[in-house]
Order: sequence, then structure tokens, then C-alpha cells
Amino acid sequence: MRCQNIDFDDVDGTEARVRAFIREVIVPYESDARLGTHGPADDLVDEMRGKARDAGLLTPQVSESNAHMPWRDAARILRAAGYSPLGPTALNVAAPDEGNVNMLSKVATSEQQARFLEPLIDGRIRSAFLMTEPAEEGGAGSDPSMLQTTAKRDGDDWVINGRKSFVTGAAGASVGIIMARTENAATMFLTDLPDAAVKIERILDTIDSSMPGGHAVITIDRLRVPSANVLGAVDEGFRYAQVRLAPARLTHCMRWLGAGDRAQDIAVDYACRREAFGKRLIDHEGVGFALADNKIDLKQCELLIDWCAGVLDAGKPGTTESSMTKATVAETLFKVADRSVQAMGGTGVSADTVVAWIFRELRAFRIYDGPTEVHKWSLAKKIKREYLSSA
Amino acid sequence: MRCQNIDFDDVDGTEARVRAFIREVIVPYESDARLGTHGPADDLVDEMRGKARDAGLLTPQVSESNAHMPWRDAARILRAAGYSPLGPTALNVAAPDEGNVNMLSKVATSEQQARFLEPLIDGRIRSAFLMTEPAEEGGAGSDPSMLQTTAKRDGDDWVINGRKSFVTGAAGASVGIIMARTENAATMFLTDLPDAAVKIERILDTIDSSMPGGHAVITIDRLRVPSANVLGAVDEGFRYAQVRLAPARLTHCMRWLGAGDRAQDIAVDYACRREAFGKRLIDHEGVGFALADNKIDLKQCELLIDWCAGVLDAGKPGTTESSMTKATVAETLFKVADRSVQAMGGTGVSADTVVAWIFRELRAFRIYDGPTEVHKWSLAKKIKREYLSSA
Amino acid sequence: MRCQNIDFDDVDGTEARVRAFIREVIVPYESDARLGTHGPADDLVDEMRGKARDAGLLTPQVSESNAHMPWRDAARILRAAGYSPLGPTALNVAAPDEGNVNMLSKVATSEQQARFLEPLIDGRIRSAFLMTEPAEEGGAGSDPSMLQTTAKRDGDDWVINGRKSFVTGAAGASVGIIMARTENAATMFLTDLPDAAVKIERILDTIDSSMPGGHAVITIDRLRVPSANVLGAVDEGFRYAQVRLAPARLTHCMRWLGAGDRAQDIAVDYACRREAFGKRLIDHEGVGFALADNKIDLKQCELLIDWCAGVLDAGKPGTTESSMTKATVAETLFKVADRSVQAMGGTGVSADTVVAWIFRELRAFRIYDGPTEVHKWSLAKKIKREYLSSA
Amino acid sequence: MRCQNIDFDDVDGTEARVRAFIREVIVPYESDARLGTHGPADDLVDEMRGKARDAGLLTPQVSESNAHMPWRDAARILRAAGYSPLGPTALNVAAPDEGNVNMLSKVATSEQQARFLEPLIDGRIRSAFLMTEPAEEGGAGSDPSMLQTTAKRDGDDWVINGRKSFVTGAAGASVGIIMARTENAATMFLTDLPDAAVKIERILDTIDSSMPGGHAVITIDRLRVPSANVLGAVDEGFRYAQVRLAPARLTHCMRWLGAGDRAQDIAVDYACRREAFGKRLIDHEGVGFALADNKIDLKQCELLIDWCAGVLDAGKPGTTESSMTKATVAETLFKVADRSVQAMGGTGVSADTVVAWIFRELRAFRIYDGPTEVHKWSLAKKIKREYLSSA
Repeated sequence: MRCQNIDFDDVDGTEARVRAFIREVIVPYESDARLGTHGPADDLVDEMRGKARDAGLLTPQVSESNAHMPWRDAARILRAAGYSPLGPTALNVAAPDEGNVNMLSKVATSEQQARFLEPLIDGRIRSAFLMTEPAEEGGAGSDPSMLQTTAKRDGDDWVINGRKSFVTGAAGASVGIIMARTENAATMFLTDLPDAAVKIERILDTIDSSMPGGHAVITIDRLRVPSANVLGAVDEGFRYAQVRLAPARLTHCMRWLGAGDRAQDIAVDYACRREAFGKRLIDHEGVGFALADNKIDLKQCELLIDWCAGVLDAGKPGTTESSMTKATVAETLFKVADRSVQAMGGTGVSADTVVAWIFRELRAFRIYDGPTEVHKWSLAKKIKREYLSSA
Repeated sequence: MRCQNIDFDDVDGTEARVRAFIREVIVPYESDARLGTHGPADDLVDEMRGKARDAGLLTPQVSESNAHMPWRDAARILRAAGYSPLGPTALNVAAPDEGNVNMLSKVATSEQQARFLEPLIDGRIRSAFLMTEPAEEGGAGSDPSMLQTTAKRDGDDWVINGRKSFVTGAAGASVGIIMARTENAATMFLTDLPDAAVKIERILDTIDSSMPGGHAVITIDRLRVPSANVLGAVDEGFRYAQVRLAPARLTHCMRWLGAGDRAQDIAVDYACRREAFGKRLIDHEGVGFALADNKIDLKQCELLIDWCAGVLDAGKPGTTESSMTKATVAETLFKVADRSVQAMGGTGVSADTVVAWIFRELRAFRIYDGPTEVHKWSLAKKIKREYLSSA
Repeated sequence: MRCQNIDFDDVDGTEARVRAFIREVIVPYESDARLGTHGPADDLVDEMRGKARDAGLLTPQVSESNAHMPWRDAARILRAAGYSPLGPTALNVAAPDEGNVNMLSKVATSEQQARFLEPLIDGRIRSAFLMTEPAEEGGAGSDPSMLQTTAKRDGDDWVINGRKSFVTGAAGASVGIIMARTENAATMFLTDLPDAAVKIERILDTIDSSMPGGHAVITIDRLRVPSANVLGAVDEGFRYAQVRLAPARLTHCMRWLGAGDRAQDIAVDYACRREAFGKRLIDHEGVGFALADNKIDLKQCELLIDWCAGVLDAGKPGTTESSMTKATVAETLFKVADRSVQAMGGTGVSADTVVAWIFRELRAFRIYDGPTEVHKWSLAKKIKREYLSSA
Repeated sequence: MRCQNIDFDDVDGTEARVRAFIREVIVPYESDARLGTHGPADDLVDEMRGKARDAGLLTPQVSESNAHMPWRDAARILRAAGYSPLGPTALNVAAPDEGNVNMLSKVATSEQQARFLEPLIDGRIRSAFLMTEPAEEGGAGSDPSMLQTTAKRDGDDWVINGRKSFVTGAAGASVGIIMARTENAATMFLTDLPDAAVKIERILDTIDSSMPGGHAVITIDRLRVPSANVLGAVDEGFRYAQVRLAPARLTHCMRWLGAGDRAQDIAVDYACRREAFGKRLIDHEGVGFALADNKIDLKQCELLIDWCAGVLDAGKPGTTESSMTKATVAETLFKVADRSVQAMGGTGVSADTVVAWIFRELRAFRIYDGPTEVHKWSLAKKIKREYLSSA
């Protein structure tokens, strides 16, 4: 039996339910003592997910038959979820699980799906995606060609060795998807977690703090997985990473757009109530223009996301479109959060509202899923390619 | 018989025809000797319009029955026209005529339409919209409440006195629409031009130079118009100005987006061919990122315009939406033009390409139809009103 | 006997000693377990100050005869101290003590100096400056005219009531300077702390975390102080606040400039060692230009600080100059920190280096000592005044 | 006898005289009919210079004994001259003559000085510096290593062939300094102009228009110059270019800073007089903050220029410092001009004030003497070199 109760044809209704659920049920958790620098503790995650399950809103993007909601509809639902930094986790639409669910739905065998995917959709376990490698060793940060983790056949098994970094949610995860170099290219492997061969060296103390389990540095030391755990085909890992990539970075945008909405709402509320120098803050153009900029910027993010979602809904890969969208939405929403902080003065940099938290999350977002500069680099290459091929 | 031959159901086809026409027929005129600081001379305008008429592309937004193309379709056609700074004039989709045609279609009596609108649609005459007043006298710049021009009844006539500024296209116009203060509010009046009572003091030497007739400063000295020349109802002038305003500023965006496309195309071409410091310019991230930013920015302008056009197509006034769109598109396209200039080095600031011209036009666009600051001011007011009404 | 051993004539030497001390002695404390969200614990402060005392570097800006180093020299010393977020506290040149020391040197009676100032200079106690009031009650945030805390005479004493917010260092402070409304204006009062009538309601969880004691919200409930504790003259509080203000915000700039240096050094080190997409990060213009911008921006901050320090050294109040400098340096250094974070990718948003910490501090700096917008508002007023008086 | 009457010890006095001269004598020429798109006509130049000569202010930076004023003093004088776009030409402190005078003073033989330098200092002739080459042929734009013009020995003469572009002031110049590739490196040659072998193909129609003679494209076809016309030593051309470069780009900054002052003064005047939406423009923060930003930015430019001038005065080459200064001042002053335009609305983009002209000049300044990106590229290289040499 499936965890949710969603009518894919009634997006308005689902969105309204999510908005109400976030506001009434999840927002109060934002000052919960079980929130730490490495994200919400797992009992808090379970508690919130239990409430989402009861509300029929858990994993709302996946139907009982494992069909995925159209991306343009998902944009609205995930945005509504993102209105609290805890919302995506509560509804099980957060990274990395949301992206892993999507990829496993498309690539995993039915046996793999039964074992790894179903409990993920049920929101009972968490997963990790082990791709990024430590910078200091020259490993694959934003540049996948530098992949150093290796997988070698040993009889009917594979033996994996390497180090990974910024592995979101690894602490507490029950499933890992590992990208490793194989003979001709790269391959993805599924593994149960925890495993003695997959050692969490430490959890990074990052500026963001919304993701359960935080971001881990991991050593993989002779991890042995059976051939049945190869995800899809051998040497096709880079291709699957692309399959995962475009929607995964787009759903990041959707969620963070909700956070941007929240920052703006709080800042508007503050600026409309508080006075200084003889009038309401919002009547000072220095503040009012900033909030006007925010309103415009939120609209622009919405439009970009909607455009890119339409590309994915049309069955296209959306690699360039999602890259343009991610880079722009991350930079734009950061400005939205920054202006919201500034409009609120001292209150803006305190934890008295969730705005400072959103600001920290959005700072990291400009780097996660590829720093803005990598996306621009890639887009410049594409412009050149298009020019040369048309010339 | 109507000047154009457009199938409203075949937007793809019309767009392709316009693109080809601009590229093949209009672009060569960009170095025509009849171009001056006050725009193309009238014989050049007539020559280009003659070719557009022959191509069945003149006034393409208006059907034989005076129906207007949906705004979302018009966005594509006007963008294609704007690919040359001369394109909108050539196709008779330029300001102020395009906006005047639209307003007259909605507000004018059938007698007024026959006399003033039809020849405008035919592209045989030009018109002017006399609203803005000189700043130095405290007149109505961006603030319509400061309107100082007056119209007083005298028997069955009205007598109008005042001064106007930034009257685009007044020199050479055959029709004038004058906004004047009447007893309770403001009223619009139609008048034939030239008229001895409507004296062009001078043409401003503005940084832009694409609009025929330039921008005039005008004295209206006891202009007498009959009651039949009242446009719509007395004291409803501000309302009609609003009717004109939203689509007029949106079509500005559409046309200038085409100019942004052009600047980017030229800059990309330059950056992909020219080398410095050992590689193609585009392979320098300092240039490549700028062109990537342009590509993203052009997409964002397109999406905003499309969104606002959809609002108008839905029959809504679109006041806020067109204000958000105009302010953002003007600022964004200016950045696009500025980056294009910069990417081309010395060539960028010379007249060897049309990029410097587009840069000058877009500089003015940030002020025409309301400086960006006025739009943000207005948007901040709206944010406050919405907050207070929801609180 | 005085805590330091500084030759005011040998600024080069002092600067070199401070640089070495920060690098060798203080930087290792940056990962000390006694660092919390409310700043370093007091035993850590004492330990660091003990080492500074041993090195003859404690309170280096004040001579044995309580003379203050010229501000242009102090700029170099405080910048060197700021190279670590802990440096200013370790050397006793941090806010609010540094500003309080400066003001007390100028305004306090010799009895007050013996009791309150000397132990501050010795670095054995800490102080707090109770001026800002809670926004939610309409109190004085950036607008001093909104001051709501009151002091009333009661016999030979004064009784003070009110609430204060963002009181840096209040937890653990031994001296408080309280700004309160008196009959005609405002007055400053000295008080020993802790005191039952000065209740710390809570410490704010702010995005910055370098200042001992954090930032407190405080209720003052019938605090009784003798007349001998009036600082300077009754009703002169606003004037003394101005005396304190200009140098206090300038020394903030000096310290944070050192933090900007540090962020840049770490980012340069990272970018020169790490590779991606086939070359060192710094050889990617997307990174290299950012670091070039940083280098220019750091120079500009240095020049502004030096200019403003020269104004103070000339005995002028420097109100406008310090306002221009503070607003600009805060905004500029934030960009420096932001670019440093971005250049380092995932590492930049982690606590693996001190860059993310500096980023958080500098975010707050754009608000502390007056949000940037307040400074610009004030500068616009001044431009207008100057114009009107010259016209 | 020398053209000027300047006491190098009385910079205040000279600055005051220049300010008065510009305001009273030169500003009225700003609407002279002899101003064209290729700069002021030569008779206008002569007329203005005649007045400067009469005022004892011509070529004020050079003493009777050909000593050069300290650069920090020159900064004030050239800034005062730049208050009008015509001022530098009127006072004979404009590019390229000012830089050529400086270089010839240092490098030319006494015979060369008598023949080429003296009349330049006297302001009776103009000169050109033929270095930049056309982009379309892969010549030396910003990258001197691409130099294609050649000089070959032929008996006791040299024969020069090549094409040059953006040769400022070539039309009307009496002296040319030509950079050409010689056997081992590059060499500079002096030549009288006009010369049939130095053909001006055309004058570029650039966005700027303050420099007499505009910017020419030139073909050099078998120009023969005697060995006596080699400037300095053979194969030392690149070194002399460096000698010329740092002060030349710094004096550009000085002059344009004066133009920035002017734009701000005009915008402040406008914003303090004109009203909209119920108050003076400057009382709208959207305008007031922009003018405050301008005030800060002008101060920052002044400080950077002063810093770099001090480096030159100390006898250092100042290559990096002048590069940092030029890139920053150009970008910053462009923003100043852009904000000034915007603050003035429609008037800002018209020729009714000189602000639009200054805006156009400053747009070009971001490219002339090296586009900003080239300076950042060079600075990033330097950061890397410094890191590697210190590591």
C-alpha cells in the first residue's frame, strides 16, 4: 500500500493541501531541539514523515503505480513543500532521495526496485548518492572526468575502493548508490548501508543545515557488491548520472523557490509593520525597492523552472535548460534571501525568524549541484559549438 | 484593402517570413545615409514600408477586420521585427503608432477610426502621443498627476494650451493624440497635424536614434479641436492611458528583445572568430561567461514577456505585470547590450556593427515608458497594499 | 603596570609582531572546542589574552599614559589582528571594548577611569554598550530618535527602565554603559555588571559567532545608579554616542579588512593548488577574475580606511567619512568573502577553512553599526544639504 | 618661451585657476557647432588652446625646463581639466598627446625633442600613437604579442608596412609614433605627418566624441624613415610602451574622474530641484541612494588614483597598480555616469546637459587602454605568480 493519497489531476488541490500542511504542521518544527548543524535528527525526520503519511502527502510526486507527476505540476508541489526548510524532508521530496527515487524508477531492475526503491518511496529509509570526491586529492568535484573511485570485477562480485566527499545523507542512510570507474567508463552500484567497508570519516560542518545526515566524507575500502547490484548496465554510469542530473537540479530549484517565497513573506511582514525614521520600512524606497526586486526575481525563477519542467515533460533531456535554470535560480534566490536579511536589520541575521537559515541554505545552493561558474563554462562551450555548427 | 497578408493561425510561418525579411531587406538599410540622430528620414521610412507592404508584412498584428493578433503571438512577431533597430518602423509595429493603433481600435468612434486609424494601419501616415511634459516646468514626466496642459470648452470646440516634451515622432506626424486636463480629470483629443497651434520648438538630441521624427518639445498654443475629436469620453483620459499603457510597454519589450538577440548574435560571431592571448575570445571565460549570461538573460526576458502577454490575452489589465516586465526587461537587455559591446572591444563601441546603436537605444529604454525606479516604487506600493489587505 | 609593550614610533615592527602572533598563536585556536555560536567562551578569551599579554601585544592601541595610537597606524595593527576572527578579542582590540575604552578615555572622570577603564585596558574584564532597542517594540534600532529606555532622578540616584537588544558581550561583561532618555535628551550611565536589575533575557542566535558573550536581549528593571555614574554630562548622551561612533565603526572596518585578507589568502591558496577541467582553478578566468576583484577590493577598503583615519587623526569628527567608509567596506568585504567561498566550491561552505566563518561575520557586518541603507540615506541627506547651502 | 605660467609649488592655486577656466571659458564651448562625431574640429581646438595659453594654463603639467609635475599633483590638475569633456584638449593634457609628451621627454634624443616634442608642448600641433592593429586581421588589439606591422632596414633608412586601428587623433596630427616589429622584438619610430605612405582609410564612428581627429584606421605602405627617427633604441619598443603605458592610463583616469564629478554635479542639481510624486527627486531614496553611491564611488576613484600616482612618484613602474586603477576607475565611473543619466530621466538621455556625452565617453573608456577583462586577466596571472614564488 502506498503512502500517499494524491490525485494527479488536481494539482490545485494538492498544492493547497501541501501549503496548509507545511504552515500548520511543519513550520512549528523549525525551532525543534532535534535540529542540528548536520540537519534534523532521524527521529525528527520520522516524526514529520509520519504526519505527512497521515495527511496522505508523503512522496506526493510518485503515484501508486510509480508514475511520476508531470514536472510542471511537481514544480508547484515542491515549491509549496520548500516553504519550510524542513518541508521537503517531511514530504520525502528532498535531495538526494527524490533524485534517487526518480533514477531508480527509470534504471533499476524490478528486483532492485522492490528491495531499494519501494522503502525509499515509503519514506521509511533514506539513501545516499556517492559521486563527488575530495578536492584535495584531485578527485571529481564538479568535473566528473576526474573520477578516482574504482570498481574491479572479482569473480561474480565487484570490489570498490575510493573516497567520496559531500555525500549528503550518508549518515543514517540504508541505501547507497556509488559511482565508480570501471574498465571503459563509469558504473553505478547499489549497496546496503551501513557497511563496514563504507566508513564515514566525518560529517562536514557546512553552512547549510537542512539535510538529514549532513554531508559526509567517506572512505570505501574494499566494498564487495554482487553483480546483481550493478545499476543498469556496466560502463553506463555517466549516462545515468545525466538522467538523474537534469531533474535533480531542477527539483532543487523548485524546493528553494519555496524557501525564497518564505524569506520574502517574512521580510514583507517585517517591513510593513516596523517603522524607522518616521515611516514604515517598506515606505523607504531602500527597503521597498529591495522587496520589489524580490517579487520580480521570484517570478523569474518560477518562469525559468516552469520552462525547464516543460522541456522535461516533453521527454527531452533538458541538460542545458536545467543547467541554465539551476545556475540562475541559485544566484537569484540567494539575492532574494540576502535582501530579505538586509531588510530586517539585526533580526535578519538572528535565528528569530527562519530567514537567516534560508540565507545559509541558499549560499550553499550556489555551489551544490555544480557551482554557477561550471554551468556558465558549460553554457559558453555550447554557444561556441552551436555557432561553429551553424557557420 | 488591407496592407498585409497574414494568417493569424500560422505564427511559425509569419515569424519565419519576418525574420527573413528583416535579415534580407531591412538590415542593409542600417547604414543608409538617410539615418540621422532623429531617426530615419521619412522617405526612408516610406521606402522600407513599401517593401514590407509588397511582402505582405506591413502592420502584421492587425487583421483585415481590425482584430489584433494574440499578444503571445505578437511577442514572437515583434521580437523578429526588432532584430533590426529599423525593423519595427519598417513593419509599422513601432512606438508610438503601434500603441496608438491599439488604443484607437478600442476607444475611437467609427468616424474617428475611418479618419485617423485606417491610414495609420495602412502605414501611410505617422502619429504622435502628446502626454509627457517638460520637467523644468514641473510638468508631468513619469507622474501623470502633474499634468499641466489644459483643455477648455469654447462653444462646441475645445481649446488646448500647454507644453509637451519627449513627443516621439511628432515631426512628420499626421495625427496627434493629446492628453489634457479637463474639469474633473483628463481627456484625450485627436487632432490633425501639422497645425500652426502645435509648434515643434525643437527635436531633442537623444542618445537613441531609431524612431522617425525623434522626440520633440512642443508648445500647444490655443489649439482648437471640435467635440467630435474627443477620444472616447470626456474626463476618461487617464483610464485610456492605462488601456494604452500595459500593451504599449509590453510591445516595447518585445521589439527590444529582438535587438538583444541581434547584439548577442553579433557578439557571439565576433567572439568565436577573433583570437587574443592564444585562443578564441569565447574560450576566455571572461568573454564566454558574459555571452552565457546573455543567453540566460534573453531567455528570462522571453519568459517574462510571454507571461505578461498571457495575462493580457486573458483579458486582464496587466498593469502590475507589464510594469514588472518593462522594468526588468529594460534593465536586463541593457546588460545584454553592454556585455555584447564589451566582448567586442574597440569594435563594440564603433559603428562597424549595429551593437553600439542597440546599446544606445537600450540605454534610453530604461527611462522611456517610466524609469525603472518608478516601476519599483509602484511595485513596492502594491506589495504593501496586498500585505495590508491580507493582514 | 601596563599590559603591553608597544613603541608607537615603530608601526612596522608592531605590525610584524601582531602578524606573527596571530598566525602562530591565535590561528590554532580557530578550531578550539570552546568556540560556540555565542562566541569564544570566557576561559578561552582569558587564555588567548594571557598569551597576548605575555607577548606584550595586549591592547596595543593604548599607551601606558592612555594615549591612543594615531588612527592611521591603528588601521594597520587592527587589520593585522583581524586576520583571525579571534585576533581582535585576543589582543583586546575588539568591539565593544575597544570603542568603550576610546570613549571612556575621552569622557570619563578620573575616578570612573580608575574603576571602569583601567581593568578594561588591562583586558581583565569585558564591557557592554547598551544602546540598541528591540525592533518589535518600536525601539531604537538604527534610528536613535526612537530611544525608549528612560532614566529618572530619584534623590541622588538615577533609576533606569527599558529593554535593549543586540547588546554585544553583555553576558560576561563587568561594565555596562547604558544610553537612556533623560528629561531633555539622552544620557549615558555606567554600571557594574552583573546586576539583578539588568536581566539577560536571552542571547540571540546570530549568523556571526566571533564576539564573546554574543548579542543579548536585556531587560533593565529599576536599575539604580548613583549620580557619580553619569558618564560625562547629563543630556549629552547623543553627543558622546557620536564621539564613540565614528572611530568605532572605523575600527570595525579595520578588523574586518584583516578577515578579508585571510579569506583571500585561503582562496588563492586553494585556487592555485586545485585543478578542474584540465587546469588550475586560478587559470580559469571565472575564478581568477574573482580573485583579481578581491585584490582590487581589498586595496579599495584599505584606501578608504586610511582616508577616514586621516580625517580622525586631523581632529575632525569624521561622521560622514566614517559612514561612507563603513557602508562601503562592509558591502565590499562581504563580496570578497562571498567570492572566496565560491572559488573554493564545497570546501568554501564547509568549516574546513575559516572562510565560511568570515563570510558569516561579514554578512552581519553589513547590518551592525547601521545597515548600509541607513548610511546611504544619511549621505543623500547630506548631499542635499550641501547643495541647498551652496545654491 | 614656454606656453604656461604654473608654479609647481602652488597646486591649490593652479587647481583653482583650472577649475575657474574650465567653468567660465571651456564649458560654453560644449554646444559649439564645430563639435562632431569625430571630436572638436581643429580650429575649435586652436581657439580653446589660445585661450588656455593666454590664461597661462596650457600644458600645465610640464615646466619650462621640461620637468613633469608630480603625478599626485597632476591628478588634481587633470581632474579639474576633465570637468568638461573638452577641458583636457583645451589645456593640452589629453590623450594621446599628453602620454606622447611624457614618453618623448624620457626617451627621445635632444634633436628629436627639439623637432617633435617642443611643438607638442607648445600645443601648436597634435600627435598620434600608432600601436593598436585591426582585430579582423588578427592584429594586436589588447595583445601586443600579435603585432604585425613590420619595419625593415634598408640602407640607413627603415621601411615600415602594416595596418593600424583606433589611432586616436591621426587625422590632423603632425607627428606619429609607430610601433613596428623589428628583427628581435619591436621598435618605435617617429615620423612627420601627414605622409603619403600613411593613409587614413577612414575614421571610426565611435560612441565617444571628445578627441580631436577621432580614431582612425590607417594603412602604412612602405613608409620610409631615417635611422635618426628611431625612438630610443632598436628592439626596445615594448619597453618604451610600458614606460608610456602606466602614466598614460593613469592620466586617463584623472581626466575621466573630472567628468564623473561633472555628471554628479549636474545630476545633484537636477535631483534637488525637480519634483515627482510629491517630493524632490533626491528625497526619493531610489534617486538619493544612487547619488550617495556616486559620491562614494568618486571618492574611491580619487583614492585609487592618488595611490597609483604615489607609486609613480616614488619612481616605481606601477604596471600592476595602474592596471588595477584603470580597470576599476573605468568601471566605477561608468556606473557614476549611468546613475547620473538615470536620475535625470528623459533629460539624462538627451543632449540638454553634458551627462549623456560623459556617459558615452565613459562607455568607451572601459575598453580603451585595455578592456577591463584584460586587466583582470593580467592581475589573476600576477596573483598566481606571487603565490607560486612565495610557496
